[in-house]
Amino acid sequence: MQSRIRKPRSTTGLPPGTLVPPSVAEGQRVRIKSFVYDESSYTENDLTSLADLTVPENTSAVTWINIDGLSDIDILEEIGERFGVHDLVLEDILDTEQRPKYEDHEDYLFVVMKMIYYYEGRGEPLVEQVSFILRDRMVISIQERAGDVFTSIRERIRRGRGRVRRRGPDYLLSTLTDAIVDQYFLVMETLGEQVAHVEATILKDPRPTGIQSIHRLRNRVITLRRSIWPLREVISHLLRGEQGIIKESTRPFIRDIYDHTIQVAETLETFRDMLSGLLDVYLSMVSHRMNEIMKVLTIISTLFIPLSFIAGVYGMNFKFMPELEWKLGYPFVLGLMLIVALSFLAFFRKKHWL
Amino acid sequence: MQSRIRKPRSTTGLPPGTLVPPSVAEGQRVRIKSFVYDESSYTENDLTSLADLTVPENTSAVTWINIDGLSDIDILEEIGERFGVHDLVLEDILDTEQRPKYEDHEDYLFVVMKMIYYYEGRGEPLVEQVSFILRDRMVISIQERAGDVFTSIRERIRRGRGRVRRRGPDYLLSTLTDAIVDQYFLVMETLGEQVAHVEATILKDPRPTGIQSIHRLRNRVITLRRSIWPLREVISHLLRGEQGIIKESTRPFIRDIYDHTIQVAETLETFRDMLSGLLDVYLSMVSHRMNEIMKVLTIISTLFIPLSFIAGVYGMNFKFMPELEWKLGYPFVLGLMLIVALSFLAFFRKKHWL
Amino acid sequence: MQSRIRKPRSTTGLPPGTLVPPSVAEGQRVRIKSFVYDESSYTENDLTSLADLTVPENTSAVTWINIDGLSDIDILEEIGERFGVHDLVLEDILDTEQRPKYEDHEDYLFVVMKMIYYYEGRGEPLVEQVSFILRDRMVISIQERAGDVFTSIRERIRRGRGRVRRRGPDYLLSTLTDAIVDQYFLVMETLGEQVAHVEATILKDPRPTGIQSIHRLRNRVITLRRSIWPLREVISHLLRGEQGIIKESTRPFIRDIYDHTIQVAETLETFRDMLSGLLDVYLSMVSHRMNEIMKVLTIISTLFIPLSFIAGVYGMNFKFMPELEWKLGYPFVLGLMLIVALSFLAFFRKKHWL
Amino acid sequence: MQSRIRKPRSTTGLPPGTLVPPSVAEGQRVRIKSFVYDESSYTENDLTSLADLTVPENTSAVTWINIDGLSDIDILEEIGERFGVHDLVLEDILDTEQRPKYEDHEDYLFVVMKMIYYYEGRGEPLVEQVSFILRDRMVISIQERAGDVFTSIRERIRRGRGRVRRRGPDYLLSTLTDAIVDQYFLVMETLGEQVAHVEATILKDPRPTGIQSIHRLRNRVITLRRSIWPLREVISHLLRGEQGIIKESTRPFIRDIYDHTIQVAETLETFRDMLSGLLDVYLSMVSHRMNEIMKVLTIISTLFIPLSFIAGVYGMNFKFMPELEWKLGYPFVLGLMLIVALSFLAFFRKKHWL
Amino acid sequence: MQSRIRKPRSTTGLPPGTLVPPSVAEGQRVRIKSFVYDESSYTENDLTSLADLTVPENTSAVTWINIDGLSDIDILEEIGERFGVHDLVLEDILDTEQRPKYEDHEDYLFVVMKMIYYYEGRGEPLVEQVSFILRDRMVISIQERAGDVFTSIRERIRRGRGRVRRRGPDYLLSTLTDAIVDQYFLVMETLGEQVAHVEATILKDPRPTGIQSIHRLRNRVITLRRSIWPLREVISHLLRGEQGIIKESTRPFIRDIYDHTIQVAETLETFRDMLSGLLDVYLSMVSHRMNEIMKVLTIISTLFIPLSFIAGVYGMNFKFMPELEWKLGYPFVLGLMLIVALSFLAFFRKKHWL
Repeated sequence: MQSRIRKPRSTTGLPPGTLVPPSVAEGQRVRIKSFVYDESSYTENDLTSLADLTVPENTSAVTWINIDGLSDIDILEEIGERFGVHDLVLEDILDTEQRPKYEDHEDYLFVVMKMIYYYEGRGEPLVEQVSFILRDRMVISIQERAGDVFTSIRERIRRGRGRVRRRGPDYLLSTLTDAIVDQYFLVMETLGEQVAHVEATILKDPRPTGIQSIHRLRNRVITLRRSIWPLREVISHLLRGEQGIIKESTRPFIRDIYDHTIQVAETLETFRDMLSGLLDVYLSMVSHRMNEIMKVLTIISTLFIPLSFIAGVYGMNFKFMPELEWKLGYPFVLGLMLIVALSFLAFFRKKHWL
Repeated sequence: MQSRIRKPRSTTGLPPGTLVPPSVAEGQRVRIKSFVYDESSYTENDLTSLADLTVPENTSAVTWINIDGLSDIDILEEIGERFGVHDLVLEDILDTEQRPKYEDHEDYLFVVMKMIYYYEGRGEPLVEQVSFILRDRMVISIQERAGDVFTSIRERIRRGRGRVRRRGPDYLLSTLTDAIVDQYFLVMETLGEQVAHVEATILKDPRPTGIQSIHRLRNRVITLRRSIWPLREVISHLLRGEQGIIKESTRPFIRDIYDHTIQVAETLETFRDMLSGLLDVYLSMVSHRMNEIMKVLTIISTLFIPLSFIAGVYGMNFKFMPELEWKLGYPFVLGLMLIVALSFLAFFRKKHWL
Repeated sequence: MQSRIRKPRSTTGLPPGTLVPPSVAEGQRVRIKSFVYDESSYTENDLTSLADLTVPENTSAVTWINIDGLSDIDILEEIGERFGVHDLVLEDILDTEQRPKYEDHEDYLFVVMKMIYYYEGRGEPLVEQVSFILRDRMVISIQERAGDVFTSIRERIRRGRGRVRRRGPDYLLSTLTDAIVDQYFLVMETLGEQVAHVEATILKDPRPTGIQSIHRLRNRVITLRRSIWPLREVISHLLRGEQGIIKESTRPFIRDIYDHTIQVAETLETFRDMLSGLLDVYLSMVSHRMNEIMKVLTIISTLFIPLSFIAGVYGMNFKFMPELEWKLGYPFVLGLMLIVALSFLAFFRKKHWL
Repeated sequence: MQSRIRKPRSTTGLPPGTLVPPSVAEGQRVRIKSFVYDESSYTENDLTSLADLTVPENTSAVTWINIDGLSDIDILEEIGERFGVHDLVLEDILDTEQRPKYEDHEDYLFVVMKMIYYYEGRGEPLVEQVSFILRDRMVISIQERAGDVFTSIRERIRRGRGRVRRRGPDYLLSTLTDAIVDQYFLVMETLGEQVAHVEATILKDPRPTGIQSIHRLRNRVITLRRSIWPLREVISHLLRGEQGIIKESTRPFIRDIYDHTIQVAETLETFRDMLSGLLDVYLSMVSHRMNEIMKVLTIISTLFIPLSFIAGVYGMNFKFMPELEWKLGYPFVLGLMLIVALSFLAFFRKKHWL
Repeated sequence: MQSRIRKPRSTTGLPPGTLVPPSVAEGQRVRIKSFVYDESSYTENDLTSLADLTVPENTSAVTWINIDGLSDIDILEEIGERFGVHDLVLEDILDTEQRPKYEDHEDYLFVVMKMIYYYEGRGEPLVEQVSFILRDRMVISIQERAGDVFTSIRERIRRGRGRVRRRGPDYLLSTLTDAIVDQYFLVMETLGEQVAHVEATILKDPRPTGIQSIHRLRNRVITLRRSIWPLREVISHLLRGEQGIIKESTRPFIRDIYDHTIQVAETLETFRDMLSGLLDVYLSMVSHRMNEIMKVLTIISTLFIPLSFIAGVYGMNFKFMPELEWKLGYPFVLGLMLIVALSFLAFFRKKHWL
């Protein structure tokens, strides 16, 4: 999960709508996969270019084009021409620092989301931008890289399970969104375990690694918020939008996703509160520890410094010191020391330091 | 009261609307109880299956079906079929991490709440999800477990006390909600006593257990907020909704519940404020304590270190140290030490350290 | 001023609308006083029961019934029956933990406020709930206890001073509210003096009693907010309500009260800000004090510990220590000590510690 | 600038609308000045009573009456009678603790503002309440004291400079408001210099006077906010109000004032942020200083305490201590001490304390 | 980047609408440059006075007048007269402390923005105010100084690249705004690097320069917020405004800019959160460091002080001290010392201090 603020693509100085692939995408191979399905059949194709795609006319079949990788400008330009997509939209697809957004164009909806998921066993979740274009009988999804959270949906299309084959492209979009938001719960779960672990560690032994763990988790929460909070708005737009492109029968599913998004957002807020509470605990544990250390130092010092002073007095080399000549001088001084020490111990007990 | 963020049921990868019982519910026995009542009579039945239930037709009798336990998917599916409940609603009923919610479907209202109550003498309050479906002449309530806060309402139905037998299912729902919110006050009361106890403890003796108590209470407040804040919205929807399913005569009762919910929510905020105030008090008490300890160390050290130095000087073994030969050398040095000690004491007094 | 969260009356488990007197009211004597007045005349009666009250018909005379004490349920039930007051309203009157509220019923308005006032020379202000029912030609006010802030209004009615005799029951209600809000200013004034006193104390000498005073005042501000903030809303409802029961000519007076309430609420916020500022000052004064103490300890210790070491060296009993034999060994060592001491003093001066 | 919360005038217990001069106004001489002007001419008069004022009829001339001082109730009552001003408005004029407010009465607008300005070279800005009544062809301004920020406006009226003589009373009011808001910028400037001064001082040397300066400035910001924030609302009302009394051509000027008010309010917020940032800096500088002090103490103590111990060992008077007899015992011990000291120095260097 | 609050121009006391150049502008040479272009051709002129400008009539050609420098009042007055610009607008152009604003006048739009950019290799970004007047077929831009971020736009006009030559003045304004907002990303990037650098430094070694860096960055964030937050509102007005002056086809470009502005604003908020998190880390690192130092001091002191005391006892000069005569007195005492030292070491180990 990147916690740095990355520079937006180097389009400064270029006219708006100029397409420049993001620098991280350079050299990537772009892969295109299309699904064409209706209730009774489906076709699946790996395409090398959009030109190979034939969108069936005069049927109710739904086409889902998925593109992995942003390095090939030509494909985007072809999408722009063939499906009438505005070049500012195409520019947004290439800008991987986009915040989640929703745009209602005349013929199509444009939606940007962040896919956050654990990929191939890495410890850190990946954040990847996915853009969706929802058109009449078609969904186009464009991802930063290969690898996504849509595997089970592809399976459902192939096997005709669930509602997806019986419904339109709006339902497909809602299912894809649902898969993305479902992954957030997994990320939340891991985060929750990490918060609980840090809490347990700090309550046991407050070390400076504790504060650094809190700091790291807090920064992660801040980063996740930037991806998840705007999504609420996006899905709320999908829900309330007046456009005919989202059918009435799909709304309950979007409302469900909306509820999940709010649940994730509130969980994030809870983590935030918990982490700032943990910081307070950490700081006061450190303070308490300092107190303990100081107490030991003070007890030992105040106990022995006066005794050392007494010993020092009778270590002086004056010729005329009557006590030195006394027969019981030594036991007398030892007794004096004992009395002084006991008084200090009583004082410490009174102060509740022992 | 669970303070951890639990994972939502393992439905990741499944199509929306798939019914999976929550893992904690496994193996539970499901119990169904039905009440059918009107002003003049009532019947009470323990059912083994929904199929045994006959909803009286063509009467004004109200049916209340209560289901304890979520492990039996068949019952939910039967509710779905028989009463036309959407499968996303059924999925929500099974998701016990649901936040309180309100959904207005065409034929019925769907409401989720959190029941927070002390059960069988446990020290910690239980949080249990209750879902309500309010239909024409019927309320269905589905709980996570056996045991609830509705005992007195059942009694009232049986004995015909209060308004409940004379009114419709909307009034029954408002009474059930009222019983849930009433329990919140008991939880608030206990919490209030705990806050007061921690306050008293900290003001007497600031120990690190103090900060941990504050931390624990603060996390509990955060958890309760997650259950109670969204309820305000839910009840506000019930109150303002335009639907014919809630009768005008029931609104004053819902308004009353709304006022109570706000009162609980404000009390929670007050606890939050008080706990963060207590943290400040704790930290400054610890600081003060450190000051006290340092003061003792400083007084003893600065008093005796110079005296020890003087004693050290006259403990040196130089052959030619005239003072050592003086007849009054020893009393002179003792006097010098006294003067030094008194000067320091005067200095401490001036600094208000004594 | 109670800072604890008191339990709401023990109505848990009872049907809504059941009347139970608050536990604190038990055994209190209830007193009823009625005023009937118009521009030319007034009658004042102490009643033992509401049955004794005759409300004049067919006149413009205003009736003000004031009830002190909540222990007698019969009186409330009589109000309910005779004046058509909903039993949820009667229940709210008995619930002394009510937050300030406004309810617009068909025939009457129901308003709950908190009277905060100094009573019979106590140091702590009393918080007492007052409920008002405003009907056609009638105001009913119900208080928790005898003793209130309405004495001067009674006087004005008796002597016919001010506008009160010439105007309707809505004006009477606005005057009663005005009297309550006026008392808030007195409470604010005392609070302001206490804040100023704590500020002066802390800036002079930061002791732990300081933090406890801040804590106590902050809790008081929190408690007062709970009483005063919702009042803004209540009065705003009175002001904007479309009901014919508040006459147009009374609105300027209510708007005036509204302005006062906002002024009190803002003053409370200012106190809150000031107290949290004071806490910062307190903590940094304590830090500074610790610094001062540590500085003294450090100066004395670092000054004398090396000198003691030198003395210790020449206190060793080696047979062959040439310096001990030197004629000027002693003055030489004293000079060495002086040089060391002066170097440290120079170091402290450079560090600005002296 | 008063930072205390002053008691509102002692009107507690009096009927609303009773006129009582504020206690601070007692004994003040009230001064009345009138300007009557149109595009071609102007008259200026010092009046002893309002009765001396003749408002020209049937002309477009504008009358500006300015009253300095609140001690004379008669003048206010005369305003009330002659110009139909509500007695609650008159009461508000006398209440110098009023927050800035705007009231739209049928025939006139009533506006209260706070004039904050440096007067006669005092270091502290004065806060003075000014009330405005804007009527048909007339502005009445009532101030607490002599001395104001309107001198240049009077000059412009006398010399016919600017637009003021060519426009109506609404423009006059906007010009007066503009003069008040312009003064706020001067106060902000001084405050900004003080914040910068405190910042420089603290970054150089964090002394407890630093925290007290921050505290004082923060309280001043709180006080100014109380005067300036509500003004935004007041001017926004002036701007949006539907009343014919403010002409369309005056609106751009009011919009300009509105922008300035927001600019002042934002500057105040910036100061608030900066001051709370400074507090953090101060506290961490103090912490750092403590660290420095402790480091010196620790280095000196840990260096010399072991050395002193070694010296102490060889200062013991045992009869049989072989080292004491060694020829090279003394240099050997000195060497040992050197090694110990160098080891500690190496340790400190490793810890980056040197 | 100025972090001081500068005084608004010294117009206090002058009538609104008086034009006074800002003091910093004095002596600057004013430069005027005009572009007149349509799809097929363009002319570019450096003008010495606005009188030299001929705006082509009856064509669709767009005129862009850019003015660098605010010292010449005559030019502004000429703009006022020739293009009917209100003198309050002209005054706002001269007030370089203006916050970003949008004003919709009948014939023209007036927009103020802040250009924040790195100029000629300086380390600090420059903040410069730019005012825009958008009229029928004309954009006038007025800058504080020479040097801006519009170079690439001029190039595009000259070479006819992009859409700019084919579209109207509204598109030109949107392109200029786009160029300004694009620069914000560069500033954000540098700021992000600085935050990351401070973070790395603090986590490695918490020095007081760390807190000062945080403080400086935080003040910079505060200053940038003042420039960027109001811009959101400005662009939102441009987007939603009903005026015919912004064509429908330009809106997508403005919406794009709006999204960018929000992205910048959110990034600023993220920096704010990160910096306040860093402060917590810094403070707790300093605390931890103090703990480390105290631990060393305490270990050394508590280890050697009791040993020194024992040595001191046997350094006393009493005549009758039996141990001194013992043959094994010295090794016995050394053994005693060893035991004491080992006990303390065991104690420290138990306390996890070693």
